[in-house]
Amino acid sequence: MEPVENAATVRYADAAGLPDALRGADILFVWDFLSTAVPDAWPSADRLRWLHIASAGVDPVMFPELRDSDVVLTNSRGVFDNPIAEYVLGLVIAFAKDFAGSLDLQRAGTWRHRETERVGGKRALIVGTGPIGRSIARMLTAAGLKVAGVGRRAREGDPDFGAVHASDDLAEHIGWADYVVAVAPLTEKTKGLFDRRVFAAMKPTARFINVGRGELVVTDDLIDALRADEVAGAALDVFETEPLPAESPLWTMDNVLLSPHMSGDVVGWKDTLAELFVANFEKWLAGERLDNVVDKKLGYVPMGAEPR
Amino acid sequence: MEPVENAATVRYADAAGLPDALRGADILFVWDFLSTAVPDAWPSADRLRWLHIASAGVDPVMFPELRDSDVVLTNSRGVFDNPIAEYVLGLVIAFAKDFAGSLDLQRAGTWRHRETERVGGKRALIVGTGPIGRSIARMLTAAGLKVAGVGRRAREGDPDFGAVHASDDLAEHIGWADYVVAVAPLTEKTKGLFDRRVFAAMKPTARFINVGRGELVVTDDLIDALRADEVAGAALDVFETEPLPAESPLWTMDNVLLSPHMSGDVVGWKDTLAELFVANFEKWLAGERLDNVVDKKLGYVPMGAEPR
Repeated sequence: MEPVENAATVRYADAAGLPDALRGADILFVWDFLSTAVPDAWPSADRLRWLHIASAGVDPVMFPELRDSDVVLTNSRGVFDNPIAEYVLGLVIAFAKDFAGSLDLQRAGTWRHRETERVGGKRALIVGTGPIGRSIARMLTAAGLKVAGVGRRAREGDPDFGAVHASDDLAEHIGWADYVVAVAPLTEKTKGLFDRRVFAAMKPTARFINVGRGELVVTDDLIDALRADEVAGAALDVFETEPLPAESPLWTMDNVLLSPHMSGDVVGWKDTLAELFVANFEKWLAGERLDNVVDKKLGYVPMGAEPR
Repeated sequence: MEPVENAATVRYADAAGLPDALRGADILFVWDFLSTAVPDAWPSADRLRWLHIASAGVDPVMFPELRDSDVVLTNSRGVFDNPIAEYVLGLVIAFAKDFAGSLDLQRAGTWRHRETERVGGKRALIVGTGPIGRSIARMLTAAGLKVAGVGRRAREGDPDFGAVHASDDLAEHIGWADYVVAVAPLTEKTKGLFDRRVFAAMKPTARFINVGRGELVVTDDLIDALRADEVAGAALDVFETEPLPAESPLWTMDNVLLSPHMSGDVVGWKDTLAELFVANFEKWLAGERLDNVVDKKLGYVPMGAEPR
């Protein structure tokens, strides 16, 4: 943060201190992106012009007062793309080769040979066509999977996905896939997109992977679908409530792999996030166009906007 | 096996029945490739001309009497290449993203965020430059790793590996790698190749993956190296003794992932192996050159021989 500290007065604040620190500030850099401190402190934002968030998803700050204001919102697009793509490919192979079963057997001291599945030739539907979804598509394609995408609008000939289906038609297309990857931005349109009807349309041998946001999924419907063998497995890195409450049945369900919202967090990620803010701050100082400006109506940075 | 049964007298035998069944037979198809029944029954091989084995490695039948005989030996080269390559890539990602740690934490009901490692940009040294090693090299390259190979002779500009180092110089080159993959054929030259000296030369953050044969490794040296933090982790699918004995410390060591000799065994593998034998049998009947003829001096099918 040194380049910022050299050029501006910088106040560091936690949730309790935010209302005071925000008063008179031009710029707010939201580091703890899951905090609700920003909407709570909003009345103190008396001269805020720019809010930058240390995440790809901007849903935690999409409260009406910010959305309807003139405050420019930027995100940390790009930082998480390749790390998350590697993570998703690893989960696909972990399902195909039953790594969890092997570890459970190892912990039990049991030698038990099983047959595994091929990864090559399998089909992955990636719901979310932003930079992270594209990176996932390229990585899975490189490993021999066939991919398709789901976005706001249907189209053909996408360079990363080939076919992109409209999210309104998700239930019609989801049965094609052996792996379904949720990585869409959380908006009013995508909240609860994965519900009972969508899960029921999945191939019963298919697995569901969520590295986007917990609220994309109606969690109780996912649990029901897993119990009814409508979905063969799920790997979840994000949850409606984080940390995942101790009483959630997901902790102990067969064929469910949990991780604590870490799929994109590679060693050095905090430095990378800070550097990205600093680079944008220098554009701000120079009066240049900021990178990664979120379209607050859409709830994400539109494709075609300069990617970082 | 129907096409074979239609054209020849076929006898099916277990280890006990093999001496009787082998008497008078022209062809022996060894299905249980880890069995020692063949050397034991060898005195009954009174007119054997061709032995085919349902595995890539032929070490279990490389006893002196067969090696020095005129019996043609063929293997099941090709069947396991891509399945094992996928498996190895999965293990690499599982280490980088600590999937085992996540599963242990899940089983304990604990939410604990950690930072993970990138896979892209990491270096993998693949010891074994046959078809399986090549498939691993291509798969890891596709996922963004840098690769090099280790084979009998050093060379540059290999299409899959780039640089190939001589196995005699393994200890000089192994320190370059973040991941070391053992997939060499087991021969007199490669037996015990991975010993104390080689492990001590590894990068202390590197992981060792064995999908070849347990006897490539001096297991006690690997255990010592893991305990001395000279090697950061190991994923082992093959062992000097299989099943791995209950008293082996490997079962419970940190950062050791075990699986029961299954990395290449995808659903349908048995059919694929049978089909490969049948196809070769039809060449035999037609008097054509057999596929996958092992050079019994080398102990494997030389590159440049027709791959299947």
